[in-house]
Amino acid sequence: MRYLSGLNPISRVVEVLPMVRRVEEVEKVAVWDAAGRVVARDVVAPHDYPPFPRAAYDGYAVSSDATPGRFRVVGTVLVGQYKRDLSLRPGEAVYVTVGAFLPEGTDAVVPEEAAKREGEHVVVDRRFEKYANVDPPGSYVRKGTVMLRQGFVATPFDVVGLLDVGITTLYAYRKVKVGIVATGDELVVPPVDPEVAAELVMRGRVIESTASLVAWYIQTFMPYVEIREKVVTSDVHEEVRAVVDRHLAQYDAVVVTGGAGPSEIDHFYKLGYEGLRGFRMKPGRPTSVAVVDGKPIFGLSGYPISALHGVVRIVEPVLRHMANAARAPSHDWHYATVTQDVPGEMAQIVRVKLETAEGGLYATPLKARHHSFTEPEAGGVALIPPGGVKKGDVVLVLAYRDVRKL
Amino acid sequence: MRYLSGLNPISRVVEVLPMVRRVEEVEKVAVWDAAGRVVARDVVAPHDYPPFPRAAYDGYAVSSDATPGRFRVVGTVLVGQYKRDLSLRPGEAVYVTVGAFLPEGTDAVVPEEAAKREGEHVVVDRRFEKYANVDPPGSYVRKGTVMLRQGFVATPFDVVGLLDVGITTLYAYRKVKVGIVATGDELVVPPVDPEVAAELVMRGRVIESTASLVAWYIQTFMPYVEIREKVVTSDVHEEVRAVVDRHLAQYDAVVVTGGAGPSEIDHFYKLGYEGLRGFRMKPGRPTSVAVVDGKPIFGLSGYPISALHGVVRIVEPVLRHMANAARAPSHDWHYATVTQDVPGEMAQIVRVKLETAEGGLYATPLKARHHSFTEPEAGGVALIPPGGVKKGDVVLVLAYRDVRKL
Repeated sequence: MRYLSGLNPISRVVEVLPMVRRVEEVEKVAVWDAAGRVVARDVVAPHDYPPFPRAAYDGYAVSSDATPGRFRVVGTVLVGQYKRDLSLRPGEAVYVTVGAFLPEGTDAVVPEEAAKREGEHVVVDRRFEKYANVDPPGSYVRKGTVMLRQGFVATPFDVVGLLDVGITTLYAYRKVKVGIVATGDELVVPPVDPEVAAELVMRGRVIESTASLVAWYIQTFMPYVEIREKVVTSDVHEEVRAVVDRHLAQYDAVVVTGGAGPSEIDHFYKLGYEGLRGFRMKPGRPTSVAVVDGKPIFGLSGYPISALHGVVRIVEPVLRHMANAARAPSHDWHYATVTQDVPGEMAQIVRVKLETAEGGLYATPLKARHHSFTEPEAGGVALIPPGGVKKGDVVLVLAYRDVRKL
Repeated sequence: MRYLSGLNPISRVVEVLPMVRRVEEVEKVAVWDAAGRVVARDVVAPHDYPPFPRAAYDGYAVSSDATPGRFRVVGTVLVGQYKRDLSLRPGEAVYVTVGAFLPEGTDAVVPEEAAKREGEHVVVDRRFEKYANVDPPGSYVRKGTVMLRQGFVATPFDVVGLLDVGITTLYAYRKVKVGIVATGDELVVPPVDPEVAAELVMRGRVIESTASLVAWYIQTFMPYVEIREKVVTSDVHEEVRAVVDRHLAQYDAVVVTGGAGPSEIDHFYKLGYEGLRGFRMKPGRPTSVAVVDGKPIFGLSGYPISALHGVVRIVEPVLRHMANAARAPSHDWHYATVTQDVPGEMAQIVRVKLETAEGGLYATPLKARHHSFTEPEAGGVALIPPGGVKKGDVVLVLAYRDVRKL
């Protein structure tokens, strides 16, 4: 055997990290295009948001000092309209809809159902405090708050949260470019006639699915990687070499599936790269990695489960390092233990901070701000059933940051 | 208020299910195109796989009865080649590579490193049992085994597992067709100049992100739904009505974001549909659903977090029902408690059955078959660290079936 006596512990993958070239190129991208990108500079709020008091309910904007009282309704401000400069005189009110900025001179909203309309007047029969039913200036975010840290992968939730407070660009690292080379004379490559493919399998052929699974994993868990090409080659050594050489020249990393073993007909070792050949992992022992001019080339088994194992243990840590990603995205429902009571008669969805401790997932509810989606601390949203939950209860959480301890 | 006094408990969503039209159309699809589709008929293995003994190692295929012994190597069978009819005489062997079907007359593989090559002969100095280093016929799957049940959503893992044993087609329900209508005069719709958009937000406008988040959630968690159209309209009632009517005519369901509230300027209630208006959920109380000719129309808040809540609580159960989906896909790393010891010095990846009990996730390792990916019982793959784990330990699991109790 050409290497199986000297299999490497999987922990040796860390030795590869200092040898690969990390992405340094940074580009400014629109936030709505940023999901999946690695943030290159801390995203900092450039201003308070909202910049002015913002209606949290449909109703009448008034001066709190004048409540209780009777007001003449002199206009309407719908969400999206900018009428800060309406000059309200004492005793005047405007009708506002949720999300509208309040005109100067008003600081509270009397909900529609709490006011009595009398023609062009409205009667408010009790006191409303300053900022009652209003999101005060800066209540979503304060100028200078770090919204998203360098190294985090922007998620669809971050996109919403940033746009919500008017942050429309950020700096991101360019994506890591990867080529995938699936090798094997035995491969049948879809799309082909399914009936023919089925017959070929019964005659010993194999339908290509390993490289497809690898590509799926990369696209799902490493959105900061761009698969530039996925090609299938024969086992002819010269062909494999030519394709791998071209990919090495054009991309940041190359993943080869198949031919990773030690036998005569395997080709990965024949490429002659120096590196770690074979790992103490099962399945997937032939998994290999070499680095050429700062670019990793990975050799994976042709078997799907073995290749997947190699991707998770060896490929992902290296590509994540190259991409400068410190926290990866997540996209699933998880069970988590809540760390404090959440009372409430209605069904709720609450933003939560997620922490992994002793192997389990813990969710700490964050104080909700009216309609804001912006919460730099949050890593997910939890579903609270009607009636609320007690500390220690288990709830479903839609996580958007990787729950793995990296 | 037009409805807030009569909010519905969220449990009433089940009353909608018998009113909507489930998809009945079934189509035959290639397995490599089936990820995300709802399986319409149980997928049953049409034959044993492998059909013949299959090499699990590179080495020499021999008759076990003739071991120990000396064999003349008369040929080679590489994976993908079909040479069952090589007529081996007693005392003959062939070189085979992993995955190759063994020629008739052989039933065991002597690994390359366990044999001594002497010119055109090979010496085997100990006994090898029948099927040693061989995947026996039917060891991946037996004819008649249900590989994937009706109502399950095919995942990328199912695709690999089915192709692995030569199943290349399945019957799937057509996707549920959905139109999304985002409403609101306040909306700024990307792509636009990011700097201009940022200024508009400071003047009270809102960058459209709610409908985008809804679309992301549907695409991620309901791959059996096809978003045929996502349009943005003003708040002009006639425009909203015209677009919603067209979507209702063309698609199976319509999701409207914005204008879901009870105030004068809201329009969802003005559409006049009978149904459930407002739910006891927070945020997202204005969430509504009506059914017209078997087609649901959903009204969601214009606020992202409220709309997301409405999608999870109200939209998803209804669309899942229409799609005939009993088990949805999952795509994330989870922490799970293993239910039995998994010994082993090397790092491992093992297929596991996943069960939710008392709110936590439990993983039961399944007996691995050599290189097969096919395991109808599995719902994920677990990472076992070097040295193995004990029953009760927590491990990372890549789940591919929804962990939520539905």
